[in-house]
Amino acid sequence: MDRLDNLPGDQRFFERSGPFSLEQLVEAAGGDIHPAQSGKNVRFRGVAPLHVATAEDVSFLDNRRYLPLLEKTKAGVVILSPAFVDKLPAQTAGLVSKAPYLAWARVASLFHPAPPSKGSRHPSAYIGEGVEIGDDVEIGPFAVIENGAKIGNGSIISAHAFIGKSVEIGERCRIGSHVSVTHAKIGNRVSLYSGARIGQDGFGFAVGPQGFETVPQLGLVIIEDDVEIGANSTIDRGSMRDTFIGAGTRIDNLVQIGHNARLGKCCIVVSQAGVSGSTELGDFVTIAAQAGLIGHIKIGEKARIGAQCGVMSDVEAGADVIGSPAMPFREFFRNVATLRKLSRKSSG
Amino acid sequence: MDRLDNLPGDQRFFERSGPFSLEQLVEAAGGDIHPAQSGKNVRFRGVAPLHVATAEDVSFLDNRRYLPLLEKTKAGVVILSPAFVDKLPAQTAGLVSKAPYLAWARVASLFHPAPPSKGSRHPSAYIGEGVEIGDDVEIGPFAVIENGAKIGNGSIISAHAFIGKSVEIGERCRIGSHVSVTHAKIGNRVSLYSGARIGQDGFGFAVGPQGFETVPQLGLVIIEDDVEIGANSTIDRGSMRDTFIGAGTRIDNLVQIGHNARLGKCCIVVSQAGVSGSTELGDFVTIAAQAGLIGHIKIGEKARIGAQCGVMSDVEAGADVIGSPAMPFREFFRNVATLRKLSRKSSG
Amino acid sequence: MDRLDNLPGDQRFFERSGPFSLEQLVEAAGGDIHPAQSGKNVRFRGVAPLHVATAEDVSFLDNRRYLPLLEKTKAGVVILSPAFVDKLPAQTAGLVSKAPYLAWARVASLFHPAPPSKGSRHPSAYIGEGVEIGDDVEIGPFAVIENGAKIGNGSIISAHAFIGKSVEIGERCRIGSHVSVTHAKIGNRVSLYSGARIGQDGFGFAVGPQGFETVPQLGLVIIEDDVEIGANSTIDRGSMRDTFIGAGTRIDNLVQIGHNARLGKCCIVVSQAGVSGSTELGDFVTIAAQAGLIGHIKIGEKARIGAQCGVMSDVEAGADVIGSPAMPFREFFRNVATLRKLSRKSSG
Repeated sequence: MDRLDNLPGDQRFFERSGPFSLEQLVEAAGGDIHPAQSGKNVRFRGVAPLHVATAEDVSFLDNRRYLPLLEKTKAGVVILSPAFVDKLPAQTAGLVSKAPYLAWARVASLFHPAPPSKGSRHPSAYIGEGVEIGDDVEIGPFAVIENGAKIGNGSIISAHAFIGKSVEIGERCRIGSHVSVTHAKIGNRVSLYSGARIGQDGFGFAVGPQGFETVPQLGLVIIEDDVEIGANSTIDRGSMRDTFIGAGTRIDNLVQIGHNARLGKCCIVVSQAGVSGSTELGDFVTIAAQAGLIGHIKIGEKARIGAQCGVMSDVEAGADVIGSPAMPFREFFRNVATLRKLSRKSSG
Repeated sequence: MDRLDNLPGDQRFFERSGPFSLEQLVEAAGGDIHPAQSGKNVRFRGVAPLHVATAEDVSFLDNRRYLPLLEKTKAGVVILSPAFVDKLPAQTAGLVSKAPYLAWARVASLFHPAPPSKGSRHPSAYIGEGVEIGDDVEIGPFAVIENGAKIGNGSIISAHAFIGKSVEIGERCRIGSHVSVTHAKIGNRVSLYSGARIGQDGFGFAVGPQGFETVPQLGLVIIEDDVEIGANSTIDRGSMRDTFIGAGTRIDNLVQIGHNARLGKCCIVVSQAGVSGSTELGDFVTIAAQAGLIGHIKIGEKARIGAQCGVMSDVEAGADVIGSPAMPFREFFRNVATLRKLSRKSSG
Repeated sequence: MDRLDNLPGDQRFFERSGPFSLEQLVEAAGGDIHPAQSGKNVRFRGVAPLHVATAEDVSFLDNRRYLPLLEKTKAGVVILSPAFVDKLPAQTAGLVSKAPYLAWARVASLFHPAPPSKGSRHPSAYIGEGVEIGDDVEIGPFAVIENGAKIGNGSIISAHAFIGKSVEIGERCRIGSHVSVTHAKIGNRVSLYSGARIGQDGFGFAVGPQGFETVPQLGLVIIEDDVEIGANSTIDRGSMRDTFIGAGTRIDNLVQIGHNARLGKCCIVVSQAGVSGSTELGDFVTIAAQAGLIGHIKIGEKARIGAQCGVMSDVEAGADVIGSPAMPFREFFRNVATLRKLSRKSSG
């Protein structure tokens, strides 16, 4: 069953457009791309990695490590950096870009666009009263949309999704299977993957004489345009203000975002990371996998938080930190080296 | 779409009671609360943070850092500590409490009580044979309740919830959407948030000649009264004895509790923390975010486990530990300082 | 409600076979097991821990720490290592094995086999066009099986499960409630626990002038025979090749497996661990709880990655590593000791 050497984009699982000419690829890629060597008027049928691509496939290279594969590839055309053009085999055309991965994303999306809304409502879905559903919305089996919710044009509400009372979802959103969304306003072109939980109560309680007493969580979750939120991630609604996810931000699987947190635009939060309540991220912040941020701190724009980092205080804009507690990358690795040296000396 | 400066408790998303008089607020808050300055016979309509509250809103202060907001607030009344009473602006009444956050929880709950059971069963729900359903139980669309389960009075079983065979759920519980519960007995007033998984097989297997062989997991999950379990958290049932969650314990999102674990009363387990199999927590233990406890250890009552802590052995009652491996807080931060100093010297 | 001293295998929750004779137990256990002391022709009715077992129960001991319980047990027969045979009380028979935990797994499974498929399709389930369903398949309420999927003989598709277009599931698989599977081929006897997410898009995007642009994820998830995947775990499909989980591998709850990752046979991945994209594990690799592996590295066969370990580079076959960054176990604990000593000196 190992498909390591099979072609990607199996047509039983993926829609496929095309074939496309070299000119159409160039147009899709946009930007500064240009052909190296003639395209021989071939029409391309799909994308594939260098080692399995055929003369009808488009392939890709941006890492020097895979140069040996380039020299042996049978791909019809390869998208690559200017630096590698002279390594193209004779029978293979090149599409040269200073941003080859971006060009690749666009060409691959030309062949395999995200499946559009089917525009139909499965009869088993439950739609409450006063729900506003735009044009061309797909609603899957056993989806539940509660009273007063709004779903924008072209959006997909997958099987078993739960959209709570008064929730607003913009246009061309993709709400995956088994997602639950309550107490939220969601922009356009937002993707929520399977099992994401948006808008449940934050973790808030006071200590009373008989035990903990719940503090009502009275804010919403605001998700701006073009956000993606991964499978089984959880984003709690705000307690007194809203939890906020800025436009273009990408959140991976199994991530926790606490109540009142505010993420800027185009942040990246990798899987199993956690952002505690009321913490604020500037724009373009990256949080690597399994990192954790305590509550009520500020992370400056473009800061990068390393994997498994434990952040206990504010981080300046543009800083690179790692370790638990967080420190600059250089300091962390210097500490590691110092301790190793002292430890060997001590036991030597 | 940024609602940072909007009022919380949007009536399209949240139920609202009231308005209430100052006397009613005092009664709801209970305890030692008392008014400072006259209430002017105003009737209050909701709760709001200091900077957006109006004369009809109740607000709150317990942190010195927000004193500048107090001095400018337009709130009708503010719940606050005795220490801050003299900072109240002239037009604002005070409700003074030595436990202002608890008073706040209660007053906010007066305005925004948790939505009660609708007391109705959606016709799409599947109810097995021999199921006992109490009075005033709400059952949402596509919920599944299998044979022999019992649901107590006033409980809510939300859309898409799955309640397995013979499971017992007490009174006034809130079982969120997409929750699954099997092999479990659950007390009263328990909340399980969306996607929580209760009672599946623990991670138990023996090494056989052809690979791993599953060890049957024959215990239950016992959840006492007033427990809350967060979104997408997982609690495995016991292997030979039961997994046990003591009364009043609060578990956040994405937490893992292994088979046979035993949590005492009023423990706090913050998001993405994990408790391995057969580990036992005394009462009032706190486990911060992303901490992990190995199996078969004991954590004494009132111990506090810091964020990202890796606990490999027993922890004494009342201890504060952090680090991986776990050590006393003081030792951890002294180590951090020592290593920084040595590292600078070493590279200096 | 505490059942610490109750018998496991409560018949309201668990199926039970038997009773069985000592000879039947020996046959089920297989291997080198043999009775010590005569079995008195008793027929055994179930399994139980030493301290609650009765004369009709089978019990188990493999840890010296529980020897005091053995001496007081009332169990009819105890499965145990040769080393403990002479501690058996007079009225208790022994089943002696050099692999007592494996024998126990098999005997417990004799009494409590996993519930078989009911072989029936709930009328509420949604089955698409061209779906191939084998013999004796159980399909629960509100399950969704999309066009062209194949389900092998004897498999169970639980309530609310979602099986996407063209997905292939082998024989005698157990697909838990609320699972979603898309873009995947799954072997025989695979268990996916509740809320597992298989086959969603990996975390892949390029940086464009207006923000991130999604890179189509065109591979599948291949899961070989006898794999188990825990509750709320997430396994992303490949981007250009497939994500691959080798035969017999066991994955616990809340685990993340990134796109293109390849796990060998009989690996163990404990809860809340994460394997980043394109990382490869050999056979028999163990990854303990909350460990994280960066992308594009190789872990040699039989390597063991400790709890909370942060692995940033390749790990050799058979190595034991822990710490963040990962290092050999011995080095890690030597570092801990060194730093403690230096720190005390420094502050002393």
